[in-house]
Amino acid sequence: MKAARLHEYGDDRLHLEEVPDPTIQGPHDVIVRIGGAGVCRTDLHVMEGIWRGIQDPRLPYTLGHENAGWVEEVGPSVTTLRSGDAVIVHPLMTDGVCPACRRGEDMHCEHGEFPGLNVDGGFAQYLRTVERSTLKLEEGLAPKDVAAYADAGLTAYRAVKKATALLPPGARCAVIGIGGLGHIGVQSLRAMSGAEIIAVDVSDEALQLATRMGADSVVKAGEDAVEHVRELTGGRGVEAVLDFVGEQGTTVQGPAMLAVGGTYFVVGYGGRVDLSAIEIISREISVVGSLVGSFTELSELMALAAQGKVKLETREYRLEDVNAALADLRDGRLHGRGVLVPA
Amino acid sequence: MKAARLHEYGDDRLHLEEVPDPTIQGPHDVIVRIGGAGVCRTDLHVMEGIWRGIQDPRLPYTLGHENAGWVEEVGPSVTTLRSGDAVIVHPLMTDGVCPACRRGEDMHCEHGEFPGLNVDGGFAQYLRTVERSTLKLEEGLAPKDVAAYADAGLTAYRAVKKATALLPPGARCAVIGIGGLGHIGVQSLRAMSGAEIIAVDVSDEALQLATRMGADSVVKAGEDAVEHVRELTGGRGVEAVLDFVGEQGTTVQGPAMLAVGGTYFVVGYGGRVDLSAIEIISREISVVGSLVGSFTELSELMALAAQGKVKLETREYRLEDVNAALADLRDGRLHGRGVLVPA
Amino acid sequence: MKAARLHEYGDDRLHLEEVPDPTIQGPHDVIVRIGGAGVCRTDLHVMEGIWRGIQDPRLPYTLGHENAGWVEEVGPSVTTLRSGDAVIVHPLMTDGVCPACRRGEDMHCEHGEFPGLNVDGGFAQYLRTVERSTLKLEEGLAPKDVAAYADAGLTAYRAVKKATALLPPGARCAVIGIGGLGHIGVQSLRAMSGAEIIAVDVSDEALQLATRMGADSVVKAGEDAVEHVRELTGGRGVEAVLDFVGEQGTTVQGPAMLAVGGTYFVVGYGGRVDLSAIEIISREISVVGSLVGSFTELSELMALAAQGKVKLETREYRLEDVNAALADLRDGRLHGRGVLVPA
Amino acid sequence: MKAARLHEYGDDRLHLEEVPDPTIQGPHDVIVRIGGAGVCRTDLHVMEGIWRGIQDPRLPYTLGHENAGWVEEVGPSVTTLRSGDAVIVHPLMTDGVCPACRRGEDMHCEHGEFPGLNVDGGFAQYLRTVERSTLKLEEGLAPKDVAAYADAGLTAYRAVKKATALLPPGARCAVIGIGGLGHIGVQSLRAMSGAEIIAVDVSDEALQLATRMGADSVVKAGEDAVEHVRELTGGRGVEAVLDFVGEQGTTVQGPAMLAVGGTYFVVGYGGRVDLSAIEIISREISVVGSLVGSFTELSELMALAAQGKVKLETREYRLEDVNAALADLRDGRLHGRGVLVPA
Repeated sequence: MKAARLHEYGDDRLHLEEVPDPTIQGPHDVIVRIGGAGVCRTDLHVMEGIWRGIQDPRLPYTLGHENAGWVEEVGPSVTTLRSGDAVIVHPLMTDGVCPACRRGEDMHCEHGEFPGLNVDGGFAQYLRTVERSTLKLEEGLAPKDVAAYADAGLTAYRAVKKATALLPPGARCAVIGIGGLGHIGVQSLRAMSGAEIIAVDVSDEALQLATRMGADSVVKAGEDAVEHVRELTGGRGVEAVLDFVGEQGTTVQGPAMLAVGGTYFVVGYGGRVDLSAIEIISREISVVGSLVGSFTELSELMALAAQGKVKLETREYRLEDVNAALADLRDGRLHGRGVLVPA
Repeated sequence: MKAARLHEYGDDRLHLEEVPDPTIQGPHDVIVRIGGAGVCRTDLHVMEGIWRGIQDPRLPYTLGHENAGWVEEVGPSVTTLRSGDAVIVHPLMTDGVCPACRRGEDMHCEHGEFPGLNVDGGFAQYLRTVERSTLKLEEGLAPKDVAAYADAGLTAYRAVKKATALLPPGARCAVIGIGGLGHIGVQSLRAMSGAEIIAVDVSDEALQLATRMGADSVVKAGEDAVEHVRELTGGRGVEAVLDFVGEQGTTVQGPAMLAVGGTYFVVGYGGRVDLSAIEIISREISVVGSLVGSFTELSELMALAAQGKVKLETREYRLEDVNAALADLRDGRLHGRGVLVPA
Repeated sequence: MKAARLHEYGDDRLHLEEVPDPTIQGPHDVIVRIGGAGVCRTDLHVMEGIWRGIQDPRLPYTLGHENAGWVEEVGPSVTTLRSGDAVIVHPLMTDGVCPACRRGEDMHCEHGEFPGLNVDGGFAQYLRTVERSTLKLEEGLAPKDVAAYADAGLTAYRAVKKATALLPPGARCAVIGIGGLGHIGVQSLRAMSGAEIIAVDVSDEALQLATRMGADSVVKAGEDAVEHVRELTGGRGVEAVLDFVGEQGTTVQGPAMLAVGGTYFVVGYGGRVDLSAIEIISREISVVGSLVGSFTELSELMALAAQGKVKLETREYRLEDVNAALADLRDGRLHGRGVLVPA
Repeated sequence: MKAARLHEYGDDRLHLEEVPDPTIQGPHDVIVRIGGAGVCRTDLHVMEGIWRGIQDPRLPYTLGHENAGWVEEVGPSVTTLRSGDAVIVHPLMTDGVCPACRRGEDMHCEHGEFPGLNVDGGFAQYLRTVERSTLKLEEGLAPKDVAAYADAGLTAYRAVKKATALLPPGARCAVIGIGGLGHIGVQSLRAMSGAEIIAVDVSDEALQLATRMGADSVVKAGEDAVEHVRELTGGRGVEAVLDFVGEQGTTVQGPAMLAVGGTYFVVGYGGRVDLSAIEIISREISVVGSLVGSFTELSELMALAAQGKVKLETREYRLEDVNAALADLRDGRLHGRGVLVPA
């Protein structure tokens, strides 16, 4: 099959080449014929070698960690899927027997493999995954339209779900960064909460998108963003901040936007969260990390998608044009999520 | 002032008569000039004498437990309100010092008085209440338009809020009875949850209302309602049932609609919930009562109202026409909530 | 191997006979050499044919659903266990791929098999189960000493865990029935909650046991039990009732013991819960079913056991003496839990 | 009456002088005859002027924010207390009408006054407070024995209560700092949770105290404390850290002790919490502040005290010896909590 593979860290291009098709190796394996694979900023970081300290696959290998398609073949113990099923692939291959999997927190699986990060991913015609990571799509959802939910969408959704428990009607939530994750975040929040949504972004275009997606008010990012958020809340601040950026000052501004008792959700990364203990205590604030999401959460997000309550902004590329897609993303020409579609 | 008062149980009319204006008696008292007072089925039950065993005020007294208006006068210790403020009145006068009030569960106040049920209520020009029970309205909300939230709306909201914790996207909730409470229930659920809403009612008109308010599907009440709900859920049943009727068979059908692990919320009353312990256990279901709501919940509901996410269907009557309003309600001619407005 | 099998419903004896050893059938199968198998009242009910409507295995089959022992052999995909490991067996064989398993609620597994109820159980030398149902014991725990935690203990623990969320210090919990489940319930409650525990039982011996296990006060079951519980709580009633009996009037008395806002947990069965909707609402009470428990909960309970915070009262029988054990249980001669130990 | 007052920031002594008795000023006021007033490190910080930026009372004023005693006189609207009642005083005078008070989070009261910090406190014979801040003691609790629960104890309790929700049996909690707060923390944790407790302190004496109070294991604070905690947990780390120190490196070590998904509770202060966003996310950890506690939480803690499940280590001083007590605390001669007792 065709696959887009990384041969050397530092390369700014993947090699499109012919490799053997993946095969069933374990009783619960599933081979998925790729219908769409999302292109993510993490792919650029992997190519730059930034992830090497955390994930160190033997090169060359195939990138692509946001995958959807159709079941091609299943292992002998698979009972819930059959050939031809349209599916989305949870990003982690989980074992189902570690304590985390048993609790339903499969993102913390102790023996998980991560296709596209530490084993071959979905920038290819076929992908090997396992039954526990394969979610059947409801009628009406096409793989290429939902692929980017597998990681970006799921990450936004999990953070939002944590936040909604703190956001009764009358409460306020600031959403920082209305990009690939943030635009799903705003829609998920709108679908699951009566709270007021304040979108914060540097881009006017992004803020307009936020308004279309259900934000109640918008704040242009910048030095006075904290002050503006406080003005919009009668001086009190917001009960929750969802930070989808996590750098360029948002980790300072985010906590400063909080009301007494509020919670700052860290989703984006790059910066540092640096607070004095006295501030954490005297305002009784919390800082909560959020990491991708569970299979159950992916199925909840797909329910929202099937009901039309969240929609992805995507741009389609042929698998052959993977390097054009990566370049568009790198150079800021890609609005919405890029999705690679094999011929 | 003018007040509509009950002189004898069994009377089907209230007496519109001149009585002394209420006066400030305690340091935290508030006198409210009534802008609207909701007419409720409970008023009919009080007149019939049904409530006498639970609440036994000295007759004659003034009915009316869903009140809104403007602050007329405040006691010397009142700090959060002033004359002229538009307000809605929480139905219970609470003491703020019992354990329940301190926990924020003021509906369980150990020393609460209930205007319209055990002391003079709001079918009058003025009402005496206390600071702890008086909620300032946001700009744009008129007392007569929101009065019926004070009891009917709040009761629906609290039950919905309890249910939303069990209703992630992909889950299903059956709402039984789309009347005064149920139509607020559907809207609140839509505003606060991504779950699928199945409305159940005997009336086609009510089901159409449910659809306009955001229900995803409707089921005509009747012998096969349980079966229809099961069909709509692929045979599984629903994660939650909100029963705003509580009689005429709904207390049997409601629990039968539940999926394994589901919860049946009892809001309406009149019937009995009668289940074998083995059924409760083997399907691991729960039955949860819900009673009116707290002041905090009323403020949350008013936030939804101010944002236009819930709307009341009301019909206005002059205070003088109280008996016409009661007769319309008694005889089924009153669609939406009747509201009495003093001249 | 030797196994104690039921040949015909209505027999009051099992047949001890030679049957083929169980063998690995699927990649995740585990063969356990039985070290102890708990004898449970449910075994008597199965023999009487009472369960036939719910579970209908082909006769003859082997009873025994509370099993512990040592791993004898594992299937080719098993990664977390090896031959010789001391283990306790979760009562349900779960698939790990249905929505309930993925959420961590494996007791609601859609394709679960229940050894001892619908397939061959552990009144034998060997048992076939699966990796997902096999929990390694910590050092110092012997299979025959913990076997009865697998069902009775787990059932008590799950109900207690649900209750503790409602039981801050100063709250009160009535525990009805201090037998096989109840004596674990009291200990678990003591270990996990600062609430006051009121034990209720007909037997003075059981009440003495309750006191040793940590109950703060005891109430003799009978007509005036509700009144006594109310007296012990200053007239208010208790925040939670754990009913391990579920018949003989406890389903009437349990809810009557509740304070406003309280919750009645149904664990035992046989009776009916029959409440008027007005009572459920006006006192805002809840009725919550509890069914066995999850694998995660079993591991939590085993942590309590390893720390010595809960202890089982057991009596050991040889497997050959199964019918003596059943007779002792049937005739009320068995105090504590009977455990069958193969030679 | 006699009162110990601060005349000038920087003084290392309070002036014991004669001042007018406090008098009833509002309808809900309560005058408490002091039975005991805890001496706290915060008193030293106030005297040094450190708190001046946050609380700026007009000097001279009376210190003392951990107060208990007997009701001397009540305002005309007080209904729940009468002269002679033994009471403990919640540290904040709350209004009962702001949103935080209504939710039961009275520590966030928008108009709270804090005796001993911004108005006259309890290093005196009498104290003025309000009904909402006055909790009747159960029989058998003496004011001087419980005074230090009012702030130190309550602060420890609230943090522990938040943590217990994350600590099922089998989980692990590290408690850093076994001093005035920490020794209550360990006891509260033991009373309310089946989790394993690992105490961390620089002092062997403190670690011995921790063991007596119920800690399962102890770790000497120092450079290798993180490594030792990890060893005790099989390399995984702990589900929760309660940091009662908050400086001297604990804000670095605390988060490093966490398992994936764990939570670091900040109670002590002085240092900074400085974490990269990628660490927060990739290990999905949380940082949660905790501030004193609510009146409801104080009543829960007093229930534990009445049941003997928590005990304070105290040392009694006469009010006249306030400067000796302060000096003993300053110079490290005071083990346990100092309590001033007026003659």
